[in-house]
Amino acid sequence: MDKKGILIVVSGFSGAGKGTIMKELLKKYDNYALSVSATTRKPRPGEEEGIAYFFKTTDEFEKMIAKDELIEYAKYVDNYYGTPRMYVTEQLEAGKDVILEIEIQGALKVKEKFPDTLLLFITPPTVSELRRRLVNRGTETMEVIEGRLGRAKEEAEGMDRYDYLIINDKLDECVEEVHRIIEGEHRRSFRNQEFIENMKRELKGE
Amino acid sequence: MDKKGILIVVSGFSGAGKGTIMKELLKKYDNYALSVSATTRKPRPGEEEGIAYFFKTTDEFEKMIAKDELIEYAKYVDNYYGTPRMYVTEQLEAGKDVILEIEIQGALKVKEKFPDTLLLFITPPTVSELRRRLVNRGTETMEVIEGRLGRAKEEAEGMDRYDYLIINDKLDECVEEVHRIIEGEHRRSFRNQEFIENMKRELKGE
Repeated sequence: MDKKGILIVVSGFSGAGKGTIMKELLKKYDNYALSVSATTRKPRPGEEEGIAYFFKTTDEFEKMIAKDELIEYAKYVDNYYGTPRMYVTEQLEAGKDVILEIEIQGALKVKEKFPDTLLLFITPPTVSELRRRLVNRGTETMEVIEGRLGRAKEEAEGMDRYDYLIINDKLDECVEEVHRIIEGEHRRSFRNQEFIENMKRELKGE
Repeated sequence: MDKKGILIVVSGFSGAGKGTIMKELLKKYDNYALSVSATTRKPRPGEEEGIAYFFKTTDEFEKMIAKDELIEYAKYVDNYYGTPRMYVTEQLEAGKDVILEIEIQGALKVKEKFPDTLLLFITPPTVSELRRRLVNRGTETMEVIEGRLGRAKEEAEGMDRYDYLIINDKLDECVEEVHRIIEGEHRRSFRNQEFIENMKRELKGE
């Protein structure tokens, strides 16, 4: 069946636990590859080149744009963020399911370019739990909390553009659920055109 | 999340093991309900009313058609076969995933009427295995085998109209795979509009 990897975009509310789920998924199963973004923002302490990000100058980044070396990119405040194409295509060809952890605008751009992309949206189980996670982290200023609520409102508007909603209630179960959904996606007919064509052809020869 | 059941149509090549898979699925998990067809053909020895089929006279069946009491129906040779609507809608409302085991023409009619229907196609793992199962049952006449091959050719033409291809290689694994795919489908965004709308509304109220 389907030997090529699936391109997977994971988005979700701030505090939904995307990062943790992805880390667990990669630890537990070896069919996944996590795409690393390129950015022009300065590395923070502890952020390693090629692990947290590929750190680029603005000039380098704009050359990557010009050469179409990015699947998608965006500018936030004064910094570029984008997904380098080469790693993604190499890993897909090698049969890995490649995960991009990006927000909705990027997700929709990727889906437009690669219609077979699988879009997953991670959410806490209830609105009140989302609110609790957004507000009650303790240390943040009101400004940060307001910013998060504002972003959550925008993100919620895009939820139905995603293929699946993943409820992050219990981490272990959630990781399993994501894995099973992706396994199931490998069985989609449109991802198995070769198998279907082969079967049609051979049956015609009978 | 999604509380309503999913309407599932299962089709597949003769000899692919549909019946056995469905039987195991129903034995193992209690969220499924198997729809029983109505037919005008005579009961065969051992076929019980309401289990194998609902046996109807032609007159009764045509009244069901006239009253729109069937989700889909078709005539083969001189007999009608169809899916009574009431059982299906009752079970869906009760939160059961309802399985119809019907062939492609019926499957497409159901999908047209109920676009959220999940279409599963069961197939042996390879063309040669399909051929083996079609030909090598031992007792059948050449006429029966030819008939099966002809049907398989037709069925193969419709494979890509189905949502998923299920490979029946090992029965236990196949049953698990079907169950997981259906579980995953419950997480589809379009099946969780209420959850999404609720989240949007409550976030707007912030």
